[in-house]
Amino acid sequence: MARTGRRTRDAARERMEENGVIPQIPFQEVRNPYPPVEIISTDQLEAIHLASLRVLEDIGINFLLEEARDIWREAGADVKPGDPRVRFDRNLIEDLIRHAPSEFTLHARNPARNIMVGGNRIVFGSVGSPPNATDLDRGRRGGNYEDYSNFMRLVQQLNVCHMMSGYPVEPVDIEPNIRHLEALRTASVLTDKVIFGYSLGRRRILDAIKIAQIAGQVSDEALWDKPCISTVVNANSPLQYDIPMLIGMIEMSKRGLPIIITPFTLAGAMAPVTVAGALVQQNAEALAGIAFCQAVKKGARVLYGGFTSNVDMKTGAPAFGTPEYSQAVLIGGQLARRYNIPYRASNVNASNAPDAQAAWESSNSLWSCVMGHCNMVKHGLGWLEGGLSASFEKMIIDAEMIQMMIAFLKPLEISDDAFGLDAMADVGPGGHFFGTAHTLARYETAFNPPVLADWSNYETWAEKGSLTADQRANKVYKALLSSHEEPAMDESVREELDAFVDRRIAEGGAGMDD
Amino acid sequence: MARTGRRTRDAARERMEENGVIPQIPFQEVRNPYPPVEIISTDQLEAIHLASLRVLEDIGINFLLEEARDIWREAGADVKPGDPRVRFDRNLIEDLIRHAPSEFTLHARNPARNIMVGGNRIVFGSVGSPPNATDLDRGRRGGNYEDYSNFMRLVQQLNVCHMMSGYPVEPVDIEPNIRHLEALRTASVLTDKVIFGYSLGRRRILDAIKIAQIAGQVSDEALWDKPCISTVVNANSPLQYDIPMLIGMIEMSKRGLPIIITPFTLAGAMAPVTVAGALVQQNAEALAGIAFCQAVKKGARVLYGGFTSNVDMKTGAPAFGTPEYSQAVLIGGQLARRYNIPYRASNVNASNAPDAQAAWESSNSLWSCVMGHCNMVKHGLGWLEGGLSASFEKMIIDAEMIQMMIAFLKPLEISDDAFGLDAMADVGPGGHFFGTAHTLARYETAFNPPVLADWSNYETWAEKGSLTADQRANKVYKALLSSHEEPAMDESVREELDAFVDRRIAEGGAGMDD
Repeated sequence: MARTGRRTRDAARERMEENGVIPQIPFQEVRNPYPPVEIISTDQLEAIHLASLRVLEDIGINFLLEEARDIWREAGADVKPGDPRVRFDRNLIEDLIRHAPSEFTLHARNPARNIMVGGNRIVFGSVGSPPNATDLDRGRRGGNYEDYSNFMRLVQQLNVCHMMSGYPVEPVDIEPNIRHLEALRTASVLTDKVIFGYSLGRRRILDAIKIAQIAGQVSDEALWDKPCISTVVNANSPLQYDIPMLIGMIEMSKRGLPIIITPFTLAGAMAPVTVAGALVQQNAEALAGIAFCQAVKKGARVLYGGFTSNVDMKTGAPAFGTPEYSQAVLIGGQLARRYNIPYRASNVNASNAPDAQAAWESSNSLWSCVMGHCNMVKHGLGWLEGGLSASFEKMIIDAEMIQMMIAFLKPLEISDDAFGLDAMADVGPGGHFFGTAHTLARYETAFNPPVLADWSNYETWAEKGSLTADQRANKVYKALLSSHEEPAMDESVREELDAFVDRRIAEGGAGMDD
Repeated sequence: MARTGRRTRDAARERMEENGVIPQIPFQEVRNPYPPVEIISTDQLEAIHLASLRVLEDIGINFLLEEARDIWREAGADVKPGDPRVRFDRNLIEDLIRHAPSEFTLHARNPARNIMVGGNRIVFGSVGSPPNATDLDRGRRGGNYEDYSNFMRLVQQLNVCHMMSGYPVEPVDIEPNIRHLEALRTASVLTDKVIFGYSLGRRRILDAIKIAQIAGQVSDEALWDKPCISTVVNANSPLQYDIPMLIGMIEMSKRGLPIIITPFTLAGAMAPVTVAGALVQQNAEALAGIAFCQAVKKGARVLYGGFTSNVDMKTGAPAFGTPEYSQAVLIGGQLARRYNIPYRASNVNASNAPDAQAAWESSNSLWSCVMGHCNMVKHGLGWLEGGLSASFEKMIIDAEMIQMMIAFLKPLEISDDAFGLDAMADVGPGGHFFGTAHTLARYETAFNPPVLADWSNYETWAEKGSLTADQRANKVYKALLSSHEEPAMDESVREELDAFVDRRIAEGGAGMDD
């Protein structure tokens, strides 16, 4: 604990980092034992609920796919020939959403990486869909396959990352018609965690499902009981579901594969300028989507997705991790719990660099997600710049913030043994606890070990080069990449995977209208 | 809202910053309308309470000042001649702490800057006591009068800073015997907010009280009803109150001046290695201090201070803004509410730079303070490096984070008017809300305006020099300094202030043992 001890420890940590070994807690199920924070009353919540039912009855939602409107007509909604607008009796909506399960398991190809969604559990997913990648060495560049693969390696390496939740960066150097095939083959090989498919037309989502089935060796018959891939469906807010998304909802719902239904309700742009109004619209769109999946097949697995934030009213730029975002995330949780449906929100920020702004906006997001009992935190690791970039350093910063949240959620031991009154009596006034038996028995596991925080004193920190958190994160992500190994996959599975992907590539993949 | 709009706005903002005009919300009372987060059960809370009473009965606390032990003997505690250790019957403690008021007003020399402490209110104070100052231009240097004065100017300029809570940096270039006189004269001149005195012996605290009385024109007779200065008293943990602190407690309590009683219980160093054990010790020390003030004078104004955090067990370095700190802050709030005494915690971090680590650790601290219904957030603005440095940039970063918290705590408008269903019907599927009447009527005040966050798109941000949050904070603090003006003070008051301070300086100020 003297200066020498600190030096030795720094050297040990540097060696660990060179070997890619970072102090991490194990991959684990995370539960939130604390009561959810509720910032509006039950009456106010009901007012939002009822207003969203009025939206669904009076204004309605555009469902642009005719097949979807046929399903709605069959289910009893108000559908007029040739009109994309569908209106819904409130009883129809309430009857349908009741069938959505309150929890389910998402299966990874490695059963040790399965995740349960719902209840008081929280899973953290990686960033999804940025068009750019960035790091401190090379700066910002368009998304590409190499960066995509490296992010997938970090998905595997970071124990607090429970799942892939979208392409961590869009690999635009792969032709669009085969991109989903190469991206998901790579994902299936580089990680054994739960993977993700995009709803961009029928061929693409069916290919994604098939790849997940091969990787996890899940037959068509077993698929309903072993959902092994999820997708996100965004409403094209305001009040519209587009054709590729609806196709995804139909194909996924038929099979019981989880759909994260997420309206994109930026208050002041695609939704009313008030948080309350944006939430009413979010709720109307989410309920319509959730009900639609149940109309496709009762018991279809869905998450209630919230993405309400505000825009900078002077420029129209989206803002994230704002006070308005926090309020929306917490109330979104209240709504999802009212319907007893798992809840998705996000770890977001609008900073252009992995700096203090990125951290405070992300921290606001994470605290709101955790306090609001969000069940799935999408964009949990790596999101920067309002989602326009995936940042390698930010991914490590997020891992640190998430690991701290997980430690915060561990219930405290409250017992005479924990209190240590004997140690207090032994130490007495003015003493110290470093060497007591109570301390020695517990110190190695007493506190959360930081992944990234540097608690050295100033002089030591300066001697080591005065590295800021983003610069240290740069070293950590490289260390993790250097030690990544492909998780075990049976040779026969790998062959089946390659055979399928190669065949589909040879067939031309998926065209614009497939 | 187009590119031109953004450019114009950036230019406007730059001009504003050059003029020292920063988008800030007004100075205001902050209330937390949300329920406090409670992470342990009532039974568990009672177990901590009862264990701390056992500490007070069985182990006791050292009160090093004989005058203090005389007060305790008089009050009925178990005091042995020549022994610093005092032991307390639990009924004595419980009877005494009942007299501590649950809320009070702290009076500033400008009544518009008075602050109420207690209930669901939160006040944010500036950083106190670092030995060093730092900024990006000049780096880290020993505390000095120039930096002290500049920090005091920021205390005045930042609207979310409710009060001075300690010397923002120690002005070590002023001789120790007159430092308190110069420092408090300067504080009284540069800000009209509530000021702070240190309990470093009788002469110093009496001088501090007198300066506050002159600045606020509060007579000795009026002082009990118009408390115009506060102090912090730290237990010298474990289980000890030192002489200068006890003198401060006596002099302040006699006059009803608020004392922030704060044990310094770092788990694993000055307290048991468990959060629960450290909290038991914190609670024992705090209750002893609070009861002592009531033994001095019933109704003495106190805050229950929590400062429990953990140390890095490999080096002994203190850590802040950790998961353990969050748990301790939330449970500290539960304890303070059990006793119905206002609660103090802190906005702390252990980073050596105003970087992402500083932000995530501070954000963890602030969220815990706010969710735990802390009434006074000490070190709210400017603390860095575990309290060893006051940072100009961090002060601006903290102002941004606090302003966001205040916006988050504004109750949402939940009403048909806020919902904007007519706007939704008008805009319809696929439209946008920028130009609707609902938006135009509300957009200027709809959302919290950032002080520091840059939400520009990447290209615009890069054109402006790719400034990170700390670099932008550097510009903001300078702009604020450049526009600081001394708040109005009557000429006669200024003369009285100078006459007192000059006389006391001529008398030699306060010696080591005064």
